[in-house]
Amino acid sequence: MEPTHPQKAVLLLSGGMDSTTLLWWMRREAIPEVHTVGIDYGQRHRVELEAGIILSKLGGALTHKIIALDLTQIGGSPLTSRDIDVPNADEGRQINTVVPYRNMLFVTAAAAHAERLGISDIYISPVEDDYAAYRDCRRTFYDALEAALSLGATRETHVSIHTPFVEMPKSEVIAVGLKLGVPYEHTYTCYNGSQPSCGRCDACVERLDAFAANNAADPIAYV
Amino acid sequence: MEPTHPQKAVLLLSGGMDSTTLLWWMRREAIPEVHTVGIDYGQRHRVELEAGIILSKLGGALTHKIIALDLTQIGGSPLTSRDIDVPNADEGRQINTVVPYRNMLFVTAAAAHAERLGISDIYISPVEDDYAAYRDCRRTFYDALEAALSLGATRETHVSIHTPFVEMPKSEVIAVGLKLGVPYEHTYTCYNGSQPSCGRCDACVERLDAFAANNAADPIAYV
Repeated sequence: MEPTHPQKAVLLLSGGMDSTTLLWWMRREAIPEVHTVGIDYGQRHRVELEAGIILSKLGGALTHKIIALDLTQIGGSPLTSRDIDVPNADEGRQINTVVPYRNMLFVTAAAAHAERLGISDIYISPVEDDYAAYRDCRRTFYDALEAALSLGATRETHVSIHTPFVEMPKSEVIAVGLKLGVPYEHTYTCYNGSQPSCGRCDACVERLDAFAANNAADPIAYV
Repeated sequence: MEPTHPQKAVLLLSGGMDSTTLLWWMRREAIPEVHTVGIDYGQRHRVELEAGIILSKLGGALTHKIIALDLTQIGGSPLTSRDIDVPNADEGRQINTVVPYRNMLFVTAAAAHAERLGISDIYISPVEDDYAAYRDCRRTFYDALEAALSLGATRETHVSIHTPFVEMPKSEVIAVGLKLGVPYEHTYTCYNGSQPSCGRCDACVERLDAFAANNAADPIAYV
């Protein structure tokens, strides 16, 4: 899929399953220098940020940088507001969890940090299942973003955004991770930010489905 | 230059001369609904943020939103760090004031706010003089950014980034503003964040040159 790999890379590591699997994937692909970035966007689930710190270390990243980008200022999403209920998966209204340009802001902030480190390869883990609600999880978007980042860099640079899982369903990503021994017990997924996880929001349901598709047990606790 | 104008637009208004002139220009072009955005990026010159609030009102904008995007986390620029000296203009090292992807983060945050307002037209005021040190002030960059914003919007949208001054030297922008009666006494420019302005940093020198080129007096105070 990706014939050669860079020597140094920055990975957006949320502490969820997909980005954590990507860290282990990068390790398998023998990328020698990986720096991870977590975004503190005012999420309800602060536990995700903590998970990122632990997983970065366990996954062998050289540094982990948390960048605060307060999306609560943009407002309107239950992921950042305690006044709006998180919809259950069966209500079919995933669109409500969208914060405009969330991924674009995250990748651009990661690219700014990467530029300071002399790195022009960014990894992020959208998966095929994310398409439906999130236009900014499609590869065409990342191609355009790559062009903007390259033209906007301080010096002439080709910035690459790597999305090795973009055409894989989540169940397949988890299959990869299970083979690589990803410690999924340390990952966090629930939109409600509760511990144990709610098991009912979109994110929990997708997670449980992905494990079920692999005939594997999810090692985290649910309500 | 721009044959038709949108009915509603968001303008990045820093409180400096160029973006303030652009607000008055938009008024002359009879864009009925203008919303302004100021970015609190941890700048030394907080006075610029205050200037933005006043100028937004004076310029007839309907709302002014301040979005905090703390670039001090990315680090390394004297514009956001009190530990690094601001170079004087004659030292020829303007490049040091660059914060990676500053404009890209600003425009993307403004676009997120605009999406919430149902607006897909963003105005920003790079001028020709900005090219030399800042690659993210060139129109080719904004074309790429426009594509990324359009592909990354929550719903299918054509996002436009308008840069009507991008091929004008700063002196010409000020000529436009002087004709339009822009209250330059309320604008703020100095990189050092001092009041009165230092008169010696790149930004002050460029400002003074632009007034001199128009045989006009700069109405603000200098040390």
